[in-house]
Amino acid sequence: MVEIQPLKGFRDYGPEEMMVRERMIAKVRTVFESFGYMPIHTPALEYAEILLGKYGDEGEKLLYKFQDAGGRTVALRYDLTVPLARFVASHPELKFPFRRYHIAPVWRAEKPQKGRFREFYQCDVDLVGVDSPQADAECLLVDSAVLRGLGMKEFHIFVNHRQFLDGLLESVGIEGKGAVSTLRILDKVDKITPAEMEALLLASGLGADSVKRLLALAQVSGSIEERLGQALALAGNHPKAKAGLERLGQVLDIVSQADPDAPICFSPATARGLDYYTGIVYETFLPAEYGVGSVMSGGRYDTLLGMFTGTTIPAVGISLGIDRLVAALGSRGETERVRSADVLVMCMPGGAGRSMAVATALRNAGLRAELYPDEARLKKQFEYADRKGIGFAVVPGDDEWKNGQVTLKDLSGGAQSLVAVPELATRLIGMLGPR
Amino acid sequence: MVEIQPLKGFRDYGPEEMMVRERMIAKVRTVFESFGYMPIHTPALEYAEILLGKYGDEGEKLLYKFQDAGGRTVALRYDLTVPLARFVASHPELKFPFRRYHIAPVWRAEKPQKGRFREFYQCDVDLVGVDSPQADAECLLVDSAVLRGLGMKEFHIFVNHRQFLDGLLESVGIEGKGAVSTLRILDKVDKITPAEMEALLLASGLGADSVKRLLALAQVSGSIEERLGQALALAGNHPKAKAGLERLGQVLDIVSQADPDAPICFSPATARGLDYYTGIVYETFLPAEYGVGSVMSGGRYDTLLGMFTGTTIPAVGISLGIDRLVAALGSRGETERVRSADVLVMCMPGGAGRSMAVATALRNAGLRAELYPDEARLKKQFEYADRKGIGFAVVPGDDEWKNGQVTLKDLSGGAQSLVAVPELATRLIGMLGPR
Repeated sequence: MVEIQPLKGFRDYGPEEMMVRERMIAKVRTVFESFGYMPIHTPALEYAEILLGKYGDEGEKLLYKFQDAGGRTVALRYDLTVPLARFVASHPELKFPFRRYHIAPVWRAEKPQKGRFREFYQCDVDLVGVDSPQADAECLLVDSAVLRGLGMKEFHIFVNHRQFLDGLLESVGIEGKGAVSTLRILDKVDKITPAEMEALLLASGLGADSVKRLLALAQVSGSIEERLGQALALAGNHPKAKAGLERLGQVLDIVSQADPDAPICFSPATARGLDYYTGIVYETFLPAEYGVGSVMSGGRYDTLLGMFTGTTIPAVGISLGIDRLVAALGSRGETERVRSADVLVMCMPGGAGRSMAVATALRNAGLRAELYPDEARLKKQFEYADRKGIGFAVVPGDDEWKNGQVTLKDLSGGAQSLVAVPELATRLIGMLGPR
Repeated sequence: MVEIQPLKGFRDYGPEEMMVRERMIAKVRTVFESFGYMPIHTPALEYAEILLGKYGDEGEKLLYKFQDAGGRTVALRYDLTVPLARFVASHPELKFPFRRYHIAPVWRAEKPQKGRFREFYQCDVDLVGVDSPQADAECLLVDSAVLRGLGMKEFHIFVNHRQFLDGLLESVGIEGKGAVSTLRILDKVDKITPAEMEALLLASGLGADSVKRLLALAQVSGSIEERLGQALALAGNHPKAKAGLERLGQVLDIVSQADPDAPICFSPATARGLDYYTGIVYETFLPAEYGVGSVMSGGRYDTLLGMFTGTTIPAVGISLGIDRLVAALGSRGETERVRSADVLVMCMPGGAGRSMAVATALRNAGLRAELYPDEARLKKQFEYADRKGIGFAVVPGDDEWKNGQVTLKDLSGGAQSLVAVPELATRLIGMLGPR
């Protein structure tokens, strides 16, 4: 017999963890929808050939790929971006601008590592069909609205523009494949020391002067305008770099009018490792004490979504690290423990009907009321409430019931009182306080 | 190149369909959680051997099964019940009673048919670890609370008890495998005529007297007590049948005290096709004009969940047909069209910052405000609002903006007025009415 466990690299989420996740996801959805984004669903399985469109040979070994009974080569999706490209191609009736979000698991046959799983959730939000500073700016506002919606007060969004980086790299003589590997080194700016960065850049074959210019990216400082100016100087006024910085300036100008307090910072070394970005890119960081990397990131990618239609479909979007956000908030005790219920209604011998009637009345008043579903001894029922952290118990004992009352017990303090049934919900709501 | 479509038997859900589904699912979750049920997650992939535990050879051909890169034979889950059994076995720390719900896709490599897909959602809610009339009764209350929560006014829950059916079948000399196939015939009670039922039962080898008794099940009538009595007589007072009916009587008595209006009916021919039920079974039907079969069904299954632990783990639960419910409500126009937003904020040349500021203020007031993310001609922006069915537009034109005002346009009637920015949200909320 195989072991009765999830597969290696896979995991269960238990009820308490899931309650926290689901409540967080519900808040995120509300923010997305407040901007007009709507959810879509695409199948977990797609033709492998479609999924390999983006990743080619590199994707091959990451895919859970197999032949179905009809002889088709199929695979589990690897991300939500290629399925979006396929969705757009399959639905020519879609009208642009098209705003969609998608929260769903993806699967990667990678070697599991600490914190990395073979099944994990992605949460993507994208604005498709428009290449405009307004669309770029909206993504920054969505990013910031999501974190505020989750109750985060301090965070920073670092933005940059790929055209600026492309121009800068061209100005030091790097193009094509070399550019991608240099960007990946630059992107470590928050993870390694300047000396380590210097060593990596030199080792990649760049000359000392070029390395000096790239290292200087991290020194850019001052107001947004000053930073943009310094960055342009570092790129030797390269026209591509200039165009990128001008666009970025427009975006930041719009955001500063719409939301002057948005914690957005031009960070000319932020690159994002993926090679499909074509415009603005961003990463979002919580304060260091949360101990996580970027929790939301994304950018503009104008060439990817048209991969199946042969047309250009501009798009800009954000990917939210749900697992990281849950872990980050959890590590700081900022995810409240979600109890299974507000109140446990106990069950007396022969009294299940009345217990259920009381529980129904509480539910109708908006409370989460759990019934102990058996005529167990009261001691056992109290132990159950204790174990689950339920704060209140209702005991509809025979004597008080005859008088139209029940016993309401505060399980944290132990105080108890007789309450008339019609007043029970109001009383409990008062005792529970704001929820 | 393969066609750019979902795989055969799979489907996309577009944004409008998903909004309706997600809102329905959110309501269902709220009801589940009001009873103390909490969500869990289990992986889409499991060891094939685990998944085959329940279905054996019959499951073999329904599974999407393959070897992963590590040589393990893995498969996509086929339902949410075997994963629950695995979850319970993998988590010995769980304490009973354990209430969980699970809403997730499952995959079956069946031949696709009209209305049947290879990927579909299951929505299961189960109360694990207790064999009691209270637990059975709770499921009936959950069933009815879910449908009421979805706004359904008329529906019927048909309940029966497997022990009664077992006793009845034994009383006419049917046991073991024959019992399952007879139950599957009986279970067609709502789909075929009495004459067709008679023919099927005779063809299965039963004698005329036995067939007569089984057919009489559909004639049982009167009050609950009368029906229970008639059913017992049909089973010739068989002790197993008697025990089942007594338990069912207890359950129905509890429900009638807790919720006298619950539309629950003892239906002695309701059987449920699956062979793992051991106690109460139920099906839920909407009025015929909805044109769907049972939308919620379930029962007690005390022998299945212990399949991996070798212990007895009693359980009772319900499976909700989300797709059927969406289709049913949609067919009657009872799912309101969910617009992408309450209001479209238009974008003037050079005015994106102010448009976004206005949209942010509306969102902070709880409205869903979509920005037209480009400085397109107003005509194009109005066409967009029209196509998406958005009812109101805000135009922050240059002149009115100088006076701290915007133009608010009712797109259904065409009326428009100047509104001071700080009053915009309140005005719009008033015009939108209750949502």
